[in-house]
Amino acid sequence: MGIAEDLAKQQRSISVAEFFEKNKHLLGFDSPTRGIITTIKEAVDNALDACEEAEVLPDIYVSIRKGGQGAYRVAVEDNGPGIVPENVPNVFGKLLYGSRFHQIRQSRGQQGIGISAAVLYAQLTTGTPAVVTSRTSAKVPAHRFSLMIRTETNEPQVLAHEEVVWDRTHGTRIELEFTSSLAARKRLLEYLKYTSVVNPHARIRVEIDGEAETFERVSAEAIRPPQSIKPHPHGTELGTLKRMAAADPDRPLVEFLVDSFSKVGQKTAVAIAEAAGLAPETRMGTLGAAELKALHTAMQEVHVPPPPTSVCLSPIGEELIARGLEKEFQLDFVKARTRPAAVFSGHPFVVEAAIGYGGRLEAEGSAQLMRFANRVPLIYQQGACAITGAVAGVNWKNYNLSQSGLPTGPVLILVHVASTNVPFTSESKDAVASIPEIEREVTLVLQELGRELKAWIARRERNKQRQDRARAVCAVMPAIAEKVAEIVDKPVPDISALEGRIMRKVVARKRAHDGRVVIEVRNHTDQVVDLTIYDLSPDAGEDAVPAPSFASGTDGEYTRVWNCSLPAGERWQAAYAGTGGGFVDLKGVDDRKKVVLPFV
Amino acid sequence: MGIAEDLAKQQRSISVAEFFEKNKHLLGFDSPTRGIITTIKEAVDNALDACEEAEVLPDIYVSIRKGGQGAYRVAVEDNGPGIVPENVPNVFGKLLYGSRFHQIRQSRGQQGIGISAAVLYAQLTTGTPAVVTSRTSAKVPAHRFSLMIRTETNEPQVLAHEEVVWDRTHGTRIELEFTSSLAARKRLLEYLKYTSVVNPHARIRVEIDGEAETFERVSAEAIRPPQSIKPHPHGTELGTLKRMAAADPDRPLVEFLVDSFSKVGQKTAVAIAEAAGLAPETRMGTLGAAELKALHTAMQEVHVPPPPTSVCLSPIGEELIARGLEKEFQLDFVKARTRPAAVFSGHPFVVEAAIGYGGRLEAEGSAQLMRFANRVPLIYQQGACAITGAVAGVNWKNYNLSQSGLPTGPVLILVHVASTNVPFTSESKDAVASIPEIEREVTLVLQELGRELKAWIARRERNKQRQDRARAVCAVMPAIAEKVAEIVDKPVPDISALEGRIMRKVVARKRAHDGRVVIEVRNHTDQVVDLTIYDLSPDAGEDAVPAPSFASGTDGEYTRVWNCSLPAGERWQAAYAGTGGGFVDLKGVDDRKKVVLPFV
Repeated sequence: MGIAEDLAKQQRSISVAEFFEKNKHLLGFDSPTRGIITTIKEAVDNALDACEEAEVLPDIYVSIRKGGQGAYRVAVEDNGPGIVPENVPNVFGKLLYGSRFHQIRQSRGQQGIGISAAVLYAQLTTGTPAVVTSRTSAKVPAHRFSLMIRTETNEPQVLAHEEVVWDRTHGTRIELEFTSSLAARKRLLEYLKYTSVVNPHARIRVEIDGEAETFERVSAEAIRPPQSIKPHPHGTELGTLKRMAAADPDRPLVEFLVDSFSKVGQKTAVAIAEAAGLAPETRMGTLGAAELKALHTAMQEVHVPPPPTSVCLSPIGEELIARGLEKEFQLDFVKARTRPAAVFSGHPFVVEAAIGYGGRLEAEGSAQLMRFANRVPLIYQQGACAITGAVAGVNWKNYNLSQSGLPTGPVLILVHVASTNVPFTSESKDAVASIPEIEREVTLVLQELGRELKAWIARRERNKQRQDRARAVCAVMPAIAEKVAEIVDKPVPDISALEGRIMRKVVARKRAHDGRVVIEVRNHTDQVVDLTIYDLSPDAGEDAVPAPSFASGTDGEYTRVWNCSLPAGERWQAAYAGTGGGFVDLKGVDDRKKVVLPFV
Repeated sequence: MGIAEDLAKQQRSISVAEFFEKNKHLLGFDSPTRGIITTIKEAVDNALDACEEAEVLPDIYVSIRKGGQGAYRVAVEDNGPGIVPENVPNVFGKLLYGSRFHQIRQSRGQQGIGISAAVLYAQLTTGTPAVVTSRTSAKVPAHRFSLMIRTETNEPQVLAHEEVVWDRTHGTRIELEFTSSLAARKRLLEYLKYTSVVNPHARIRVEIDGEAETFERVSAEAIRPPQSIKPHPHGTELGTLKRMAAADPDRPLVEFLVDSFSKVGQKTAVAIAEAAGLAPETRMGTLGAAELKALHTAMQEVHVPPPPTSVCLSPIGEELIARGLEKEFQLDFVKARTRPAAVFSGHPFVVEAAIGYGGRLEAEGSAQLMRFANRVPLIYQQGACAITGAVAGVNWKNYNLSQSGLPTGPVLILVHVASTNVPFTSESKDAVASIPEIEREVTLVLQELGRELKAWIARRERNKQRQDRARAVCAVMPAIAEKVAEIVDKPVPDISALEGRIMRKVVARKRAHDGRVVIEVRNHTDQVVDLTIYDLSPDAGEDAVPAPSFASGTDGEYTRVWNCSLPAGERWQAAYAGTGGGFVDLKGVDDRKKVVLPFV
């Protein structure tokens, strides 16, 4: 027919760079506005990953300067270990080139696509090369490259390469110029702020057209870089097993299983061989298709402990999450939880979450939802994300929050999914795919936190009610005291102590009786108070019990100081010989929370 | 530091096959259930594209057979032009290999990824090779390949290749075995049914585990394959322009512009050169970065007519859409509209839509939404699709439909977006990205159709009311006739003719007067009726006017037949000499719609 021959002439290979140039929206370069955020995100992700490998505290600098005709010049610089000069062209000028693709461990970047895609986007929209400066130690000079990507072949093209003087002893800097807009400036800053929350060990400085902002670190502890683990038998596909067997033909079966997979010991390996009906010493190369299939089935069926999680994952931890949130949002309530590690299709993962309430959060509208995967904020496609689905799926009314999809009110919800293989819905890594195991963990952690928030809100409500009631009683008490005094014909009593008790304050009183002075402090609040009690007095009081921690003075002017930690509802007392007078004071408790009665 | 050197050792290229094997969910292979649908979709898309190239009417056969241990064996066979043997390994065994990537025209497949990804999925889950049979004409034998993909290199690995006898003279067949489930059988059949609606020229036969179903073609006209066009200046990025210029350094500017871009004639090219401040004869190779930038800016600013659409796009057309829907859904109302072509970022596109109502559609719940892009049904991620957004954004209450997001009730909405570059949200091509120009076109076409549906519903309502009223009048008429006859002391008249008129029926009557017989038919309905009028009579009536189309009989038993097409409201009449008697009858109109009065 000739048609097949005609068609054959048109058939050819498409380079992966051509593919992603045409489909740049798949990588988060849908629009100039988003392009700038995606570029910075890719560069910052790489910077944080690199610092983590080197166990240095990241110090990242981001600069955005407006050029002509809608072009922006973006630079991102880090203090990571740097990249050896021979690898710079491939790392920045070749898509699908990287170090983490074949490693099973948590990392931000994985595919070796992101930053090269940004280089591609820059050369597509402005035709300008990327400028990369990198230095690996103080002993060697820095190298500067000007490079582009040959789209047809997906190979780097180095336009210039020189040694340069650089004040950093190690680190990497990338500069790109591309068509963009700063319409999403707010979102960009939000991205950096969120990044700072989940990377509390990082300092990020940003300068947008001269205007600077710094997100300070709250932890001075570098992150231990997650370690690679071996694949888990339960997550291994038959095709992969075939490939592994073919690569290791002389190895006996049991040895192969023990060495190739995580959590497979001698005993488990023998059990797998048995279940597959194979001799333990069978060499891998001799296994036929049917035997490999039987082996694969046995690997799924025999019980193997879940994959190890402590080395390959790096959750942020409850304390650091809470601290990061408090720094950025000044919350009335914040609680974080890290769930035990779990597994989906052989991939370990950990879900962490936090709930914040009050503070500077908007009182109206939907809760603020912060989604994270492997310490990277997810800022687009909230609606398509399994995290959002799980949050909306929780019945927040159970926890006394109103709800319309998400909970509403001054609520902040943070969810972090850390995994050796985060299942994103697209290459642009905007949303987590809906995996039942992950959704379940998110739901569980939010329910836990919801209960905590509910208890806190209830307590706050109770406190408020009690205070309201107390305030009402105190408002009428003086009138009652006056009336009663009139009836029994006595002077109007001092009701301050009573007021203190009703209003749940700390009340201090000094009295003298039979030549002894007694100082008494009562804690009517519902919390422990750490008090310093000052006593200014004309009595020397050298026999004071308990003995003051400090005492001085002469000639009828003495100062004594006690320290005490007073539990809620308890009473503290000191006594010495004397006639009294002078006064006491308390430190360690808010003025509104204390009543010091005059000496009687 | 040594760390950079350590890291450098781990860096390496990742093959695109490795990338997509790990990220198979990005291509629609998220789960075994979905895997089977994606595989069949990719194979059927290819089959339809191939038949279109060859301008043959597609005859596609899909077979699904259950194997052991959750494995399914799927075969898809077409009568397309076939693939020359040299190209078979690359087409099926190499991702990013194809003929349509660099062509600007409407097609189903484009990237050269889909079917190879299915091959990859099969070898990953079952370790089995793909079996491909192809033949390009009756003059050559068929070739059968057994092949896999070398994941590490993204190169095909041919395990077997032989010439075979095949009953097809041209076509291609692919067989794959992979782990799957038929849990989504209903969705699979839906996909095939929808495919059949937008490919009315295709016959698709499917056999699932022995159970067969055929989706017949409703059109016997092969589709004219869309033709490639040149890029449009308004959709060309600066980086692309640079590349084009570098590839053609000796060409004078104006000639370059005219030859390289669509809709750029001599006059437009000169205007662009002028706006860029460049001489028309400047050779492309001599243009520096700044000059190319100026040229690029001028290309965006100078008015250029929109790209041509008639050759590169292949909309289905209003009539075929309506016919396809009627065949599958037996609707009471269906209307389709094809909008004029429009443009986004230099890419031409056409939106077509249809609304169906009543018939076999569910009376309750949300409308059935059928989304299509380049004649391919979109079956996943309805919520994430711009089409869904546009449908939900129309105020359907304006058209007398209730609405909760989508309209509700027995409504079907079909939307087809055809473009040289459909902007999908992901590689799995499930949803159209939200592009304002496309959303606008969808909204406009639905508003148009909404008005038509509203008018039809209103008309139906009016008809129903009129009928109800007529029925009420007819119910009391006999009583009135009786009463009046009693008052005027005459026999009760036959009111059937009147009833026919009120009830909007076709009324036939035969009368004799003064030796002439008159047959009269009145059409009181609101439609043309094609009638056959039978007259059985004792009269020979040889002088009948008009002459009957058939007449026979002897001895006082004569039959005459007339045919007539009678418009709404019109009267037909025939007459001949005679005394009358016998009777008339009508064919061509429903019994409930006709009244034949007795001879008087």
